[in-house]
Amino acid sequence: MYLGDNARTPYGPRPAEDVRRFTLECVAWLLRQDPKVLVLACNTATAQALPQVRATAPIPVLGVVRPGAVAAAAATRSGHVGVVATAGTVASGAYPEAIGEAEPTISVSQQACPDLVPLVEAGELTGPRVDSAVSGYLDALRSGHPELDTLLLGCTHYPLLRPVFERLLSPSVRVVDSAFTTALALEDLLDALQARNGPVPGSLPTGAAPQPNRVATTGDPETFRAVAVRLFGKDLPVVEAVDLAPAEAHAD
Amino acid sequence: MYLGDNARTPYGPRPAEDVRRFTLECVAWLLRQDPKVLVLACNTATAQALPQVRATAPIPVLGVVRPGAVAAAAATRSGHVGVVATAGTVASGAYPEAIGEAEPTISVSQQACPDLVPLVEAGELTGPRVDSAVSGYLDALRSGHPELDTLLLGCTHYPLLRPVFERLLSPSVRVVDSAFTTALALEDLLDALQARNGPVPGSLPTGAAPQPNRVATTGDPETFRAVAVRLFGKDLPVVEAVDLAPAEAHAD
Repeated sequence: MYLGDNARTPYGPRPAEDVRRFTLECVAWLLRQDPKVLVLACNTATAQALPQVRATAPIPVLGVVRPGAVAAAAATRSGHVGVVATAGTVASGAYPEAIGEAEPTISVSQQACPDLVPLVEAGELTGPRVDSAVSGYLDALRSGHPELDTLLLGCTHYPLLRPVFERLLSPSVRVVDSAFTTALALEDLLDALQARNGPVPGSLPTGAAPQPNRVATTGDPETFRAVAVRLFGKDLPVVEAVDLAPAEAHAD
Repeated sequence: MYLGDNARTPYGPRPAEDVRRFTLECVAWLLRQDPKVLVLACNTATAQALPQVRATAPIPVLGVVRPGAVAAAAATRSGHVGVVATAGTVASGAYPEAIGEAEPTISVSQQACPDLVPLVEAGELTGPRVDSAVSGYLDALRSGHPELDTLLLGCTHYPLLRPVFERLLSPSVRVVDSAFTTALALEDLLDALQARNGPVPGSLPTGAAPQPNRVATTGDPETFRAVAVRLFGKDLPVVEAVDLAPAEAHAD
């Protein structure tokens, strides 16, 4: 069950308190769908709202920051990791903290990239505007850090620009993102929970049948579907429209 | 609560059915101590008994293979990973499978190193015998795989020989082990479980106070303590003696 808060993206430049409130609203809706586990599949939301979500949700919650940090800490040989992320994720300090927790001797340089999420959301993944934005951010990141050998894509949108990052970087720089480590962390968590006798309390009903995947957005379902097709090259079965806070939204 | 099955180490060369039985005996004892989560902190036991333990234990169980595989998959740039492990772990195919799950394009070469656990258990971490054993294994592993750029220490004893591996390898080869990724996976799991309302069913009693660390061995506590001091340079508070299968042991 996927929910995209497309009506309020990008989260990256928003104040932390807005990110927390929006994230908790999304979580409240997702919890009503009776999930077994929740993944905050957004770096900004993880960096700024994970403790609040964990305090609220009666089920296990995974974020994407720690899995990405583990991958970056494993990947570096020089001990210098660069992080590109949204302004909110950079300001939170979540990545330097998580990478330092994995390996305290690693030094981390961060660069906020506010132009990238809008480009990706517009489906613009190649071309001079993308190259110019990415190379500008990389220049800023590398200046004074020539020994940087690992670049962590600290935003779930950036892997869609991975070919651009890799083309503009030295081949010796390893690009890592949190996608596969988060997926494996989720698999490990589900495996661990399946070892329990009986259902997870308050979440998966006893004997509940597996449910089909569902996709929902707070934005326009047709726009969402069009972007998804452009980005991933395949159609989605049904995109549900979700209104998280009708009264407030209508008052805006 | 740590239990070392030192009376029956090394597990590495034993048949898989013995590893499973011994591991399940250790798990049964650990479960009687009322843990919240269980970590199979042994590659051989994880590779050969994790599904059986998960089928038995009413609490979440983490192994060390997947976290190590994730670290190795993140670390390689050439796409060739070497794995050194016990004979049992190599024979199980657990690492090639887990690394392939993380990144299917990575090729994996394995080398069983049966001489290393006995050397480490004897506290022999340096010197000509260690160098000779490690360099022989590395020669066998690298022959025909010059592009190997990441070495996964696929046994919980081998990180104690990490300086030897690193000295005998090209500086361009990154050595990774599962220790830090497993520790972070455990932290993530505990964080996720702490988000639950109420205790983990059948494990942590409501309102239970944190308990002090405990260390136990099926072998001789004084030998265990002496080895631990030699390896880690500090003493342990108390080492408990555990007899897992008295009748059978006395009949041997």
